[in-house]
Amino acid sequence: MIGRLNHVAIAVPDLDAAAALYRDTLGAKVGPPQDEPDHGVTVIFITLPNTKIELLYPLGDNSPIGSFLEKNPAGGIHHICYEVENILEARDKLKADGARVLGTGEPKIGAHGKPVLFLHPKDFSGTLVELEQV
Amino acid sequence: MIGRLNHVAIAVPDLDAAAALYRDTLGAKVGPPQDEPDHGVTVIFITLPNTKIELLYPLGDNSPIGSFLEKNPAGGIHHICYEVENILEARDKLKADGARVLGTGEPKIGAHGKPVLFLHPKDFSGTLVELEQV
Repeated sequence: MIGRLNHVAIAVPDLDAAAALYRDTLGAKVGPPQDEPDHGVTVIFITLPNTKIELLYPLGDNSPIGSFLEKNPAGGIHHICYEVENILEARDKLKADGARVLGTGEPKIGAHGKPVLFLHPKDFSGTLVELEQV
Repeated sequence: MIGRLNHVAIAVPDLDAAAALYRDTLGAKVGPPQDEPDHGVTVIFITLPNTKIELLYPLGDNSPIGSFLEKNPAGGIHHICYEVENILEARDKLKADGARVLGTGEPKIGAHGKPVLFLHPKDFSGTLVELEQV
């Protein structure tokens, strides 16, 4: 069912410092900051040859990243995103197998403009998993 | 400097359950368990079209995964691994930029039989980073 690893998302307490680290010290291709007010984050995409790293920083008062950074002040890996061909089929299969889909269970439009769902970390070895339809 | 994302490593409290989840529920290509006594882990590789997921489970009394699982009983993402062409050049550049290399600073032979180094999470937004020479 799952296809490519679309991205690894890392929540960071200092977006400029993290971008500089990936650009100057690790020598990666680092994009500009993009505000995503619908998702409560400012995002920087780092393009690797085979996948992406997303740096996430809180935007606004109700950012989903805010509480994560309170618990992990140095930052940390927030989630991983797998691609699926059909997100509704994927969701129904997951629910039939007993996995919990977060929120209403209906896909939302994610930061890439594609339908996404998030799965409960407790059902996936402590890992917050995003599914994105591509 | 960094190239492909070689793998994302997830520490899991139940290797069989995590393998079944990725194979049966997520429909991924899941390999057999491999004991790596030199690294204190049993590993299962999950092959995605563009990268790998490594499931890590403690092996022996001094596993580096043991304390991680004590802190994160449900499991969690343990590290991410970037490929580099020349690990000694990468190390020297990182040290010159003030990043801390774990252990002796000399590369070890990793689970894939290639030279690896680990970088201090505090210098990389709370993320344990492995570099692997390919």
